[in-house]
Amino acid sequence: MSAAQYLSQGKEYIDAAICGYLPNENTFPASIHKSMLYSILAGGKRLRPVLLIAAAEAVGGNRQDILPFAVATEYIHTYTLIHDDLPALDDDDLRRGKPTNHKVFGEAIAVLAGDALLTQAFYLMTDSSLMSSIPPEKILQAAHDMTDAIGTSGMIGGQVVDIESEGKPISSETLEYIHVHKTGCLIKACIRAGAILSQSKLDQLEALSNYGGQIGLAFQIVDDILDITADQSQLGKDIGSDVDKKKATYPALYGLDKSKKKADELVEEGIACLEIFGEKADPLRDIGLFFTQRTF
Amino acid sequence: MSAAQYLSQGKEYIDAAICGYLPNENTFPASIHKSMLYSILAGGKRLRPVLLIAAAEAVGGNRQDILPFAVATEYIHTYTLIHDDLPALDDDDLRRGKPTNHKVFGEAIAVLAGDALLTQAFYLMTDSSLMSSIPPEKILQAAHDMTDAIGTSGMIGGQVVDIESEGKPISSETLEYIHVHKTGCLIKACIRAGAILSQSKLDQLEALSNYGGQIGLAFQIVDDILDITADQSQLGKDIGSDVDKKKATYPALYGLDKSKKKADELVEEGIACLEIFGEKADPLRDIGLFFTQRTF
Repeated sequence: MSAAQYLSQGKEYIDAAICGYLPNENTFPASIHKSMLYSILAGGKRLRPVLLIAAAEAVGGNRQDILPFAVATEYIHTYTLIHDDLPALDDDDLRRGKPTNHKVFGEAIAVLAGDALLTQAFYLMTDSSLMSSIPPEKILQAAHDMTDAIGTSGMIGGQVVDIESEGKPISSETLEYIHVHKTGCLIKACIRAGAILSQSKLDQLEALSNYGGQIGLAFQIVDDILDITADQSQLGKDIGSDVDKKKATYPALYGLDKSKKKADELVEEGIACLEIFGEKADPLRDIGLFFTQRTF
Repeated sequence: MSAAQYLSQGKEYIDAAICGYLPNENTFPASIHKSMLYSILAGGKRLRPVLLIAAAEAVGGNRQDILPFAVATEYIHTYTLIHDDLPALDDDDLRRGKPTNHKVFGEAIAVLAGDALLTQAFYLMTDSSLMSSIPPEKILQAAHDMTDAIGTSGMIGGQVVDIESEGKPISSETLEYIHVHKTGCLIKACIRAGAILSQSKLDQLEALSNYGGQIGLAFQIVDDILDITADQSQLGKDIGSDVDKKKATYPALYGLDKSKKKADELVEEGIACLEIFGEKADPLRDIGLFFTQRTF
């Protein structure tokens, strides 16, 4: 199966489950549920849950057993998008080709919808009745590991430095900090969660962490490149918005060619970490390669 | 020991621990940690963690064993205050006698500080290494129960209806929905968490849930009353702000006397649920009575 096929089938698998763990849009109070579902159903690629599943399968895990946790990672990703788009943060009007959450539901509901998606993610990540085949201590470990990755020493730390660096000249170290934390930490944590929930051995977890660290950074570098080179219709968000906001990006600091080369090298190094898994890690290898070749 | 003494000693116990689970204010990136600590250290009464501890002790639990979880509930409470105060929500300038978080750190950091406190709360609630005397399945159950209470079927649901009811005539049912959900759910969940973590029996958990439901609502009714009757110096926030915002309150719907009577009745009913615990529940009884007598 090609990476495109694996991702497309993985996306279908997640999409079929993703609303089942949320109240339907008419549940009282309806506005918040409509708002949450609006962003959840806005057409994400579901890369994070698919990576979680691929990592679980690389160590012999079963995708059905970990589905709630996988879906939770998409809620986390969606919460960050809603809050990032707020006027006080990135002030974006368009996301995935549609008006951003606060443009449709107002800022108050958008703040609360983000809060609610993060909360619902934790609700799912701690639901031992839905993941009864997984030992409670492993669920706890995976949830704890995830919260570490998305707090101020991880994702939120990256968001803060990103905001505070707008319009300023920054060093290559600061740029790498932003990208590794803002984007890489969650991607790596998804891969780690798949492994932890599937009771991986320590050397497997370490190998997958290293892989996750490399492709997480590569993913954000490619995002920077696409912000310059892609069509708006392909990307579904404002093109050139990084440049408009004087955001720190790899192409701004290194140029397009060097950035592309850096992403290729990271993916190569990431894939090299997967040797111990044999062909069970083929989907992870293919996804890594796909990251550098994607056009959206 | 009087309720005032129990609460004051409980506050000291929590205050001594509350910063130990957060990065210090100079940890990079400093702005977010300063912002989190600013609100955490703004002088809360620590009622929620103290109630958690009192419930645990009522069923024979040990306060040291559950301290991280207790502290986490104060992070949750603080996150809701920061987000509630934002211009897009309640637009409050003063909280606990000090400028609100976004007034000091800006809206972007205030949004992220709320997110980070919620995340840090989950980090603590799932930290089995810090709560090694508690079985992992109990930690998981308590964390899951807590997330249920603070999501859209609980606290966030109450916040949404509160915002959407401003300036409109509302029914007594809607007012009760707002108060039970916005304030009561978290208070009740704290009491339940203390019991669950201390391996309470089912009838004990049920009795404490009933107590929590009653005093949680009573607490918010008294908050409404104090918004009208207290001095700003006592309350530490804008007085009469509920009236200014045309917020739905008990005094507005029932008058001050009937509201006071309703709060007294709720506490009485709550205390009646505690019979099975004997004198081990004395602190819970005293805190209930204190709720209706407090002046701040």
